[in-house]
Amino acid sequence: MQSNTYYRSHTCGELRMSDAGVEVTLSGWVHRSRDLGGMTFVDLRDRHGITQLVFNMESNADLCMAARKLGREFVIQAIGKVAERSNKNAQLPTGDVEILVESFTILNASELPPFTMDDETDGGEELRMRYRYLDLRRPQMQQRLMLRANMLKAVREYLDNEGFVEIETPNLIKSTPEGARDFLVPSRLQPGLFYALPQSPQILKQLLMVSGMDRYYQIAKCFRDEDLRGDRQPEFTQIDCEMSFVRQEDVWNMFEGMTKHVFKKVKNIELPDFKRLPYREAIKYYGSDKPDLRFDCKINDLNDVVAGSEFGVFNNIINTNGLIAGINAKGCSEYSRKQIDELTEFVKAPQRGAGGLIYIKFGQDGSIKSSMDKFFTPERLQEIGNACGAGKGDLVLIVADKEKKTRKVLGELRLEMAKRENWIDKNAWSVFWVVDMPLFEPDEETGEPIFAHHPFCATHPDDVAYMDSDPLRVRAQSYDLVMNGNEILSGSIRIHNKEQQEKVFKILGFSEEEKERRFGFMVNAFKYGAPPHGGCAFGFDRWVMLMAGGETIRDVIPFPKNNNGRDMMMDAPGEVDNDQLKIVGVQLL
Amino acid sequence: MQSNTYYRSHTCGELRMSDAGVEVTLSGWVHRSRDLGGMTFVDLRDRHGITQLVFNMESNADLCMAARKLGREFVIQAIGKVAERSNKNAQLPTGDVEILVESFTILNASELPPFTMDDETDGGEELRMRYRYLDLRRPQMQQRLMLRANMLKAVREYLDNEGFVEIETPNLIKSTPEGARDFLVPSRLQPGLFYALPQSPQILKQLLMVSGMDRYYQIAKCFRDEDLRGDRQPEFTQIDCEMSFVRQEDVWNMFEGMTKHVFKKVKNIELPDFKRLPYREAIKYYGSDKPDLRFDCKINDLNDVVAGSEFGVFNNIINTNGLIAGINAKGCSEYSRKQIDELTEFVKAPQRGAGGLIYIKFGQDGSIKSSMDKFFTPERLQEIGNACGAGKGDLVLIVADKEKKTRKVLGELRLEMAKRENWIDKNAWSVFWVVDMPLFEPDEETGEPIFAHHPFCATHPDDVAYMDSDPLRVRAQSYDLVMNGNEILSGSIRIHNKEQQEKVFKILGFSEEEKERRFGFMVNAFKYGAPPHGGCAFGFDRWVMLMAGGETIRDVIPFPKNNNGRDMMMDAPGEVDNDQLKIVGVQLL
Repeated sequence: MQSNTYYRSHTCGELRMSDAGVEVTLSGWVHRSRDLGGMTFVDLRDRHGITQLVFNMESNADLCMAARKLGREFVIQAIGKVAERSNKNAQLPTGDVEILVESFTILNASELPPFTMDDETDGGEELRMRYRYLDLRRPQMQQRLMLRANMLKAVREYLDNEGFVEIETPNLIKSTPEGARDFLVPSRLQPGLFYALPQSPQILKQLLMVSGMDRYYQIAKCFRDEDLRGDRQPEFTQIDCEMSFVRQEDVWNMFEGMTKHVFKKVKNIELPDFKRLPYREAIKYYGSDKPDLRFDCKINDLNDVVAGSEFGVFNNIINTNGLIAGINAKGCSEYSRKQIDELTEFVKAPQRGAGGLIYIKFGQDGSIKSSMDKFFTPERLQEIGNACGAGKGDLVLIVADKEKKTRKVLGELRLEMAKRENWIDKNAWSVFWVVDMPLFEPDEETGEPIFAHHPFCATHPDDVAYMDSDPLRVRAQSYDLVMNGNEILSGSIRIHNKEQQEKVFKILGFSEEEKERRFGFMVNAFKYGAPPHGGCAFGFDRWVMLMAGGETIRDVIPFPKNNNGRDMMMDAPGEVDNDQLKIVGVQLL
Repeated sequence: MQSNTYYRSHTCGELRMSDAGVEVTLSGWVHRSRDLGGMTFVDLRDRHGITQLVFNMESNADLCMAARKLGREFVIQAIGKVAERSNKNAQLPTGDVEILVESFTILNASELPPFTMDDETDGGEELRMRYRYLDLRRPQMQQRLMLRANMLKAVREYLDNEGFVEIETPNLIKSTPEGARDFLVPSRLQPGLFYALPQSPQILKQLLMVSGMDRYYQIAKCFRDEDLRGDRQPEFTQIDCEMSFVRQEDVWNMFEGMTKHVFKKVKNIELPDFKRLPYREAIKYYGSDKPDLRFDCKINDLNDVVAGSEFGVFNNIINTNGLIAGINAKGCSEYSRKQIDELTEFVKAPQRGAGGLIYIKFGQDGSIKSSMDKFFTPERLQEIGNACGAGKGDLVLIVADKEKKTRKVLGELRLEMAKRENWIDKNAWSVFWVVDMPLFEPDEETGEPIFAHHPFCATHPDDVAYMDSDPLRVRAQSYDLVMNGNEILSGSIRIHNKEQQEKVFKILGFSEEEKERRFGFMVNAFKYGAPPHGGCAFGFDRWVMLMAGGETIRDVIPFPKNNNGRDMMMDAPGEVDNDQLKIVGVQLL
């Protein structure tokens, strides 16, 4: 690294005891200063670290007086000798030394910043977003940006080594009338027409496979104009990959390898081989297609165990093909009335909508208490407990509803219990494949099959027979990678065969005209020898967030937007002249 | 590299004599096939190469018959044994071997493609653009995309090693009312407001320096909605870099190092150290700020040499502070009347607009002929020749006009002569810095100073004194890197000091309100301790084009747009529903 410039001979994170006696030049920001009368100490900061500067009143009073006037965040250049510190700071890599300053220059003054540049800053999120350039001075944020860059580097290292070619696809692409989440870009050269920003390079990467590029990757900016519920951004980054002449196993091996490589390189963690969990099992046992498996706690089906009781609620559920199921909250038998009530409120909250929550407490003393003990003998309650794997000291929580809802609610309840009971080891990593995702899902309103992922996913070879008779039963060659309860990758083997593609379009009920308009150039491309191919895309922001221990993807995006899609720092989006709109052929409504 | 998949054990570029006898599986496209009666040969192609498959009528008639039916661009998987070829092909890395095919599968059929997949294809540009996915199957295009990826890899290798952090800046940024070349993106969440796509990350990278990120880079997509004269694209790729605590020398050394690294890695060429040519000299001697120095041929000022003649045209020019200057076209003394006329037409063409062209031919026999020999004695013509460095056999070409035009026209004429006379060695590389660019340039209409590069360029320290008295004389700390007559990098040291920035805004005549609206958040950021910083951006597409020997940047962009900004393959831009427009708050004019 070339670092001996006029402005600095070393960074603020570089000097050690072995440099003692060396004359150095440092540049950086005044992080903090302390004036002890005879001595003034200044912590000089850059992104590499902090080095202590010392000014001595006795040896140079003028210089020391000048140093006392340095304000927070002033940019200075200091020249001096490296010396051993009498009062060493083991917290800092540079903590054994200090600089006895001989001269310094103020490169730039600073007004008093609106918050401190510490990890534990006094600035709230809105203020920090407005002054993001100052927020990014906080060591934590600098480390996050560097982590992000290091992850990208490890990703590229692996993919380059595996013969992937990095290829840039365009950002100004075709808008489709149905692309309701497309960001539109009016064309000036062809007024009245619009480009769209890509929601993903899906079609283009498949065309690159048609073109024979074999192994492609791109760190791709993607754009989606949707309500920013939850932790979403209108623009986000994908590690987008595609391979030709592969089956699912090949893709899994390749990207399992990549994920392990990144963990090893960036965190020095050796991940064990990834489990491959069928989608149906994920739903059955964890009520989620992205379960958090850093803790156990499965969903246990209880219809058979509870059948034939006097409990009308259960009998109704059984008779209407609903599901009674429970989880075992280990060690929670002593939960109070209030705690049980809180859990009941949790499952009944509108976004979950369960009718209620049934509990069985298995006391340490062998006692059994339940909200349904008038319908079940202690022996039968024990049987239910056994079915859930509960023993003395445990609490069984039961939901009875339509199957889908029971599983979903219990899936969320197990997460809630894990949070309450601290079941999750913060240093644990759970990374595994969810495979055999459904090809179609029922439209929420009409019940008709709509594509679950996108209409180019290949059918699971064992399920081809059900394509006509029972499309909703058909599994796709489609998979996700789940990390600590987050989907961080989604992918599939694609259809490369014209006839199979036509069949899917037919099931989806696309008219000839709709097919042509939405996918015309792609269908056309596939006439000229499309190879078997498949791939995936990582949600890179989320992966970085998990690795960085951040709470939202905003923590790892240099200049994010808020929940209104607004960049608080730049104050974007903004107003535009009518003249400027006229040039691109539009006007405000 | 993991390559032993179900579909292939090797690529089509991999097998050698040392593999003879091995059973292999290859997959690829049928590039060409020849049927010699007893034998059928199929060239199987992937992006790694071509391998010959052999089918023998004698040993397996059915298989051979089936192979005969394979059409061009069919995708097949073939299993067989590697064998030595009797008829070796030295042109192919795999040319020593062939595969004795034992079985094959058609993975996908192909319709007859609209052009051949050869470097010398029969498809015209429009057709190839429409079927870009097929165009990209041509070996030349595949090599270009791989070259592009290799260059990126070398760039990152160097920058990572030098401590640069790759940081992504947003693509949905602030639109400014003056940003006439901005692509606009209407906001759905805030109807009536607009984002803009970035013309470059200039301001954001400077804010990253304010945030202390020190050394930043990004392979950045940039967008400019302008007429696509010449070789431009509405979206293009920059290698965008910025450094803190640097002076010009530091930036030059860093990116000279990077350029050399890329040449070494990708082409195994060791470039010599780059010359640093002051802008004024580039204009004076070559009439261009991006001269092609693969050949010499300087512009020679002749006012002093031709003064005091009877030639009214020259005297007028001298009296009105114009410039008479000439170039020496070495070895062209035998140019015919017709050739001289062509050159005269060239300089008089509307885009150049010279009044005419004067010549002096210095014959091999010592004779001197000139279009102005009635005004100058042979001795004085010889003096002019001497001033231009002309000897026997040479042709001096003279233009007399306003200084700027004389230099521009002669600059273009020297390029034209180089083309006509093949002065340029196609394997030569000329890479050098043009430094000390002007800070301002006169507005073409008003003559008032406008910024030459952007309003954040720092002043040359020697010229600060002229800021008020003669701003157009002031040089900036601004530089370009010129490669074979193309500007491939542009950069500067930026102003980090509030007062200097205010001074520049004042000279540019910006009102307080205009300043606030256009640069408000940036000016604000600079109050909090901006470090000295500078950087540059490479025009990556052009650099790749030069390295690939392409003729336009479209040759090295996977999915380019045509001169109307249209993607012929996707048929973008396209029409959009009124409903969709309504959602984002606009309507067509």
